[in-house]
Amino acid sequence: MALIVYSGGLDSTVLLHYLAKQGRADGALWFNYGQRHLKELDCAKANCEKLGVKLDIADISSLSHLFGDNALTNPNVDVPTGDYDESNMKTTVVPNRNMIFIAIATARAIALGTDSVAYAAHSGDHSIYPDCRPEFADALNNVLGICHYTPIKLERPFVNMTKTDIIALGYKLGVDFDLTWSCYNGLDEPCHKCATCIERDQAFQFFYQKGTGERLP
Amino acid sequence: MALIVYSGGLDSTVLLHYLAKQGRADGALWFNYGQRHLKELDCAKANCEKLGVKLDIADISSLSHLFGDNALTNPNVDVPTGDYDESNMKTTVVPNRNMIFIAIATARAIALGTDSVAYAAHSGDHSIYPDCRPEFADALNNVLGICHYTPIKLERPFVNMTKTDIIALGYKLGVDFDLTWSCYNGLDEPCHKCATCIERDQAFQFFYQKGTGERLP
Repeated sequence: MALIVYSGGLDSTVLLHYLAKQGRADGALWFNYGQRHLKELDCAKANCEKLGVKLDIADISSLSHLFGDNALTNPNVDVPTGDYDESNMKTTVVPNRNMIFIAIATARAIALGTDSVAYAAHSGDHSIYPDCRPEFADALNNVLGICHYTPIKLERPFVNMTKTDIIALGYKLGVDFDLTWSCYNGLDEPCHKCATCIERDQAFQFFYQKGTGERLP
Repeated sequence: MALIVYSGGLDSTVLLHYLAKQGRADGALWFNYGQRHLKELDCAKANCEKLGVKLDIADISSLSHLFGDNALTNPNVDVPTGDYDESNMKTTVVPNRNMIFIAIATARAIALGTDSVAYAAHSGDHSIYPDCRPEFADALNNVLGICHYTPIKLERPFVNMTKTDIIALGYKLGVDFDLTWSCYNGLDEPCHKCATCIERDQAFQFFYQKGTGERLP
């Protein structure tokens, strides 16, 4: 069984369905870290309800003063627009975010008696976010193996998949992508201008053009 | 320079003095995780003020509902009394606590531009707390080395020292042990009955009997 680090975004929603389909979704944990895009939570709730997975909320918004000047948690820093490239996206790095999420999710997994934590890092994140890279996940998996009396495992089944691959898998699993949220701006509708909107829109375009999905787990 | 995971307890207060003496204490981070023994914070403030080290507070008390039935954060579970042995102390394990602390401290270090995080794990903790063991610290150090664009280091200079050794070092550094707090109960004075009080009292007894300190870093 697995506890899923679940944002309500496209990638982790497919992960939730993927593990639920296997009967392995023991719970989901959503993080409020002071981000602007709280519409994620509505999506997270809707998908968990649909799949009958218990959703817990980890509120770490009280820590945002510690995280410095990044665009996701500091209202004085603009969310970058344009392509999802390195220079644009570095202002959206919440330092060490995935380690924080996984550390707390692991504590929750231990309290639940679950032996696995799953997160939806994928290959498109690697160049920008150090804490989405395979070697980071491997090193964290080593920590989780000895952080408790019995080993905890870190699952990252999408780590070598593109976002287009994830969309293909999602369609196969019956994911309703209208119930996922990616935009970094906290508006009512996606802005289609911020880098994560552009990345998402491009991934859907690639999917409709090519229908890829060869790297499915 | 180093950011210190600082509880206001005996071990981390000696660590704070140890790094401040070297001119390497770049900041200290105190965690409110819903523990009963909030008197630690008064001690933490007093020592930081004395040494001119900036103290930040990380409030994760909103997460305590995720951590299950442990005696430090759940008021319905009694703090164990008697010796500091395994069966007694297991109820005081907040699951994965040190990984959570170090993950958040690392985010803070990155935001501050500091390249090191220090924590005061020592040899007496090893048998009870998986997340105080040297191999756990080594595995975490590997994660910190790749969690950001530049490596962060995890320092744990006391990992092979006993509490008695730490007391010896503290006296050498001019630590006022009356400004440290260990008791797990949230009373005005230490109870001298809970396991951590007994461990502390025994360490001082050993120090006065033997004056050890051979394993100083």
